[in-house]
Amino acid sequence: MNEQNQIYKIRHSLAHVLAQAVQHLYSNVKLGIGPVIENGFYYDFIFEEPINEEALPKLEDEMRKIITKNYNFEKSIMKKSEAVEMLYRVNQPFKAELANEIQDDEVSFYTDGDFMDLCKGPHVSNTSEINPDAFKLTSIAGAYWRGDEKRPMMQRIYGVAFETKEELDEYLRVQEEAKKRDHRKLGKQLELFTFSDLVGPGLPLFTPRGTYIRDQLIAFSEQLQQEAGFERVCIPHLAKSDLYKVSGHWDKYKENLFHVHSNQSDDEFVIRPMNCPHHAQIYASAKRSYRDLPIRYLESTTCYRDEKTGELLGLSRVRSLTQDDAHIFCRDDQVKDELIMVLGLVRKLYQALGMNFRARLSFRDPNTPEKYLGTDEEWQRTQDLLKDAVEEAGLEYYIAEGEAAFYGPKIDIMVKDALGREWQCATQQVDYFQPQRFGLTYTDSDGKEKPVVMIHKALLGSVERFMSVYIEHTAGNFPLWLCYEKAVVIPVSNEKHVEYAHKVAKQLNNMGLRSYADDGNETMANKIRKAQLTKIPYMLIVGDKEQDNDAVSVRLRNGINLGLMSIDELAERMRNEIANKV
Amino acid sequence: MNEQNQIYKIRHSLAHVLAQAVQHLYSNVKLGIGPVIENGFYYDFIFEEPINEEALPKLEDEMRKIITKNYNFEKSIMKKSEAVEMLYRVNQPFKAELANEIQDDEVSFYTDGDFMDLCKGPHVSNTSEINPDAFKLTSIAGAYWRGDEKRPMMQRIYGVAFETKEELDEYLRVQEEAKKRDHRKLGKQLELFTFSDLVGPGLPLFTPRGTYIRDQLIAFSEQLQQEAGFERVCIPHLAKSDLYKVSGHWDKYKENLFHVHSNQSDDEFVIRPMNCPHHAQIYASAKRSYRDLPIRYLESTTCYRDEKTGELLGLSRVRSLTQDDAHIFCRDDQVKDELIMVLGLVRKLYQALGMNFRARLSFRDPNTPEKYLGTDEEWQRTQDLLKDAVEEAGLEYYIAEGEAAFYGPKIDIMVKDALGREWQCATQQVDYFQPQRFGLTYTDSDGKEKPVVMIHKALLGSVERFMSVYIEHTAGNFPLWLCYEKAVVIPVSNEKHVEYAHKVAKQLNNMGLRSYADDGNETMANKIRKAQLTKIPYMLIVGDKEQDNDAVSVRLRNGINLGLMSIDELAERMRNEIANKV
Repeated sequence: MNEQNQIYKIRHSLAHVLAQAVQHLYSNVKLGIGPVIENGFYYDFIFEEPINEEALPKLEDEMRKIITKNYNFEKSIMKKSEAVEMLYRVNQPFKAELANEIQDDEVSFYTDGDFMDLCKGPHVSNTSEINPDAFKLTSIAGAYWRGDEKRPMMQRIYGVAFETKEELDEYLRVQEEAKKRDHRKLGKQLELFTFSDLVGPGLPLFTPRGTYIRDQLIAFSEQLQQEAGFERVCIPHLAKSDLYKVSGHWDKYKENLFHVHSNQSDDEFVIRPMNCPHHAQIYASAKRSYRDLPIRYLESTTCYRDEKTGELLGLSRVRSLTQDDAHIFCRDDQVKDELIMVLGLVRKLYQALGMNFRARLSFRDPNTPEKYLGTDEEWQRTQDLLKDAVEEAGLEYYIAEGEAAFYGPKIDIMVKDALGREWQCATQQVDYFQPQRFGLTYTDSDGKEKPVVMIHKALLGSVERFMSVYIEHTAGNFPLWLCYEKAVVIPVSNEKHVEYAHKVAKQLNNMGLRSYADDGNETMANKIRKAQLTKIPYMLIVGDKEQDNDAVSVRLRNGINLGLMSIDELAERMRNEIANKV
Repeated sequence: MNEQNQIYKIRHSLAHVLAQAVQHLYSNVKLGIGPVIENGFYYDFIFEEPINEEALPKLEDEMRKIITKNYNFEKSIMKKSEAVEMLYRVNQPFKAELANEIQDDEVSFYTDGDFMDLCKGPHVSNTSEINPDAFKLTSIAGAYWRGDEKRPMMQRIYGVAFETKEELDEYLRVQEEAKKRDHRKLGKQLELFTFSDLVGPGLPLFTPRGTYIRDQLIAFSEQLQQEAGFERVCIPHLAKSDLYKVSGHWDKYKENLFHVHSNQSDDEFVIRPMNCPHHAQIYASAKRSYRDLPIRYLESTTCYRDEKTGELLGLSRVRSLTQDDAHIFCRDDQVKDELIMVLGLVRKLYQALGMNFRARLSFRDPNTPEKYLGTDEEWQRTQDLLKDAVEEAGLEYYIAEGEAAFYGPKIDIMVKDALGREWQCATQQVDYFQPQRFGLTYTDSDGKEKPVVMIHKALLGSVERFMSVYIEHTAGNFPLWLCYEKAVVIPVSNEKHVEYAHKVAKQLNNMGLRSYADDGNETMANKIRKAQLTKIPYMLIVGDKEQDNDAVSVRLRNGINLGLMSIDELAERMRNEIANKV
């Protein structure tokens, strides 16, 4: 967030206006902090009596009153010691604590009308710059002062704000829609996955339906890769800690590793948190010549990372993440072509999935070169290479400084969902560092041993996370190729048509189109409602007419009726849909 | 091993004869124990000077001399205290230690000619019953006295023995052949898998070729299962220890579990050693009706067991074992049909793999009912059920008492390899116990909740172990459907035919038949030799004639020449072979 942007200033100013409104409506409120966040702002308070969300509309009204007063935001400077004393005097101990910690003799305040707040700015010059209809207070949550559970619990009031009412409305619409599409809710409703207290948090178990989606997505990703010359390998989920000490991951990530204790030996193990060091061991198992390269190892396998329980969220944030991972071992002169080849796979995959994307070039922060391995020249060269590759591949892109891995820059693919939200999915990283740590080389045409270059790549990224995105993108209306059950056959009458319904289902099953007959003891209308809830793509209604004509009446998930179709016609239509992934 | 069998008595007597021969040829030898083992016997000694394997033929000669003296084996009884004193006096402290531990006032000795040994028998009556040409001393190894590394190191001399010379010769032939086929040696030669010191012992990494075999075997097993109504699910490799405490595995297996420590929570985890408790959690995630059953969850996934480093052996004994596992949840009245259905899959699988098998009914030991859960009646009923199922499926079978799991009897499938060795591969277990521990039920037609029955099944068993068996069974000459590379194209002349060789390889690749051209700078003869070492099924020789005719000269791995064939003819032949798995 750029502090000089107008929207930043508006949001920051609104945080002050919120605190000001709170002080108008409540007495003896102690103020915490009030920063800008994505899409809005918050402010932390301790009220004499805790408030609840019913108070928010009144606070919004009061904020609008303040905004329409057209107050200037005016900066003033005070000596630190005086400021601390003053803040204690007006009974704002948290503000006093903050002022006291400022590393300067002087501190700044901003005043608008009757409200003055310790602040380093920036703000709008006048509250008239704030559109009083383009913000909204959204929720209240508990938050410990400075995030420390030993300090007092405060109430955090969240708000969202934009420059225009249209933007706010669009944002709220998307939020509302996102809530409906929440993949955790849909995952339960559609029976895609489940969690078990006995298995533990962040460790999803996939039911047959969810497994089918996983399997199909992975198979598609692997097919694209195999066509492009990637080869499947298979590695264990366990390794000695030594592997990660040599690879260099140990120092950076040991807090997020699951450490494993053996009763039978003194070896220290960890559960594999990423695949590159294992794949490097397969590369190292034989002598490689320049003619063998590139060697491309592909494997969609589950890694384990010890995430904080509080940060786990459905499939978005899990402890068991399956990557459609691959590692390319190539010569330096092959890197660019490999990058472009992989970007081609990215394009094929997301086009088939019906999702737009752009590339984010994740470069190092040029202001903190000490955080990265390698020289300025090396970084410049590799970053230029990535930029060239993305341009030659014809992708829309933008540069994000500070988003690189410590060992190299990345091409991250930002995928846009149906609600316009962007998610980082695919990624490519160029790595000169790990091959060096493992001593991975090849014999060049001149007979010399030279270091190989490693490219890390994933197309879907974490399959679990991608599923969370895709479930919300489609709202659970998966394309036919991802639906475990393609059709349900619904008899008009339970007496007369159940047998025929079973016959139709069996015919489709024999054609490889998984279907079932709903032979339950309910009305047809109920069965249709039930089928709609499961978002099954095809409902096949069978009554006298259908039975007499060896046909079905086809009703789609979206309500469209296709009328009477023969089983062969229907199968043909379904097969086309599956083949074209629509 | 039945002690009353003649072969047992022969082997036991030969152990004595070995010790007797040792005493004839060496002085001041201290004797340890000399038991019967599979196919033979051993005896432990401490020599004044350690001997080596060159000494074995001389010992064999001396043994033959003793045997042909037609000594009787005569039993004598001595008071324990006298025996101990005597054994110390003749400087046999290990024998004295053994005698001292016998829980009886009297101990028995057996004497043949000039040799007397502490022993409870039984033996042959006379050494003339031993065929002097039907035994062989095979090796010497170090062994601690009583297996205790704090006690003295002894030399263990191994021997094999049979009733006839033909049996001995056949045994030695199989051993010799097995050594040539050793899957560890072939795994390296054919580049199927590798181990890494950094990853750790017992944790194989599969290269593209080995992965292809794994993938194809698993895909075939899963295809058979899916056609039979099994559904794929997907579970994490991790679970809280609680899962195994509830399942009942904790108490029995905690020594062989990999225990996992989290930095981010206080939960205790283990790496999943088996899949049943996880699958039970998926079953438990929804209400189940009698109409839903059987529910069959299939998953080929890797489990981890903490085996002793010293017991690990190639792919036969690993720490990471992938089972083509499934769990059937069914009603009691469905158990037999399910067992028969699975036996049908077993038959299809091993017929396709070209391996004979028979069923072993692993029943409980009727003499130790206290080691098993459940009543006599329950065991009788389930064992009868298994026997009926195997008979109805028309399988050859035998009963092995004492081989049951503690919770139920098993049908183990014993697969015979090309050398006549039997290996336990597929298995089926009926389990009333785990569903009860997890409270797994279904609503029956009468509206009551009833316990479900679980059947555990695997077709290949551990895929790693099966691969070790199958590599040795085929001696690495895998059928075409399991070969990663189906053909190598070898140009007659490196100048004239390399381009055409590449063209042929590309054509086959485009047809989905992975092939490569050997364009190295070597002679054709060398390339053929290299190809033979990799056991690639098809060598396609291309020279002028082939090039002019858009054809190849086909030479099979077994040396047979098929002569000139067009690419289409060849592809047709290969496709048939793959489809028929021959």
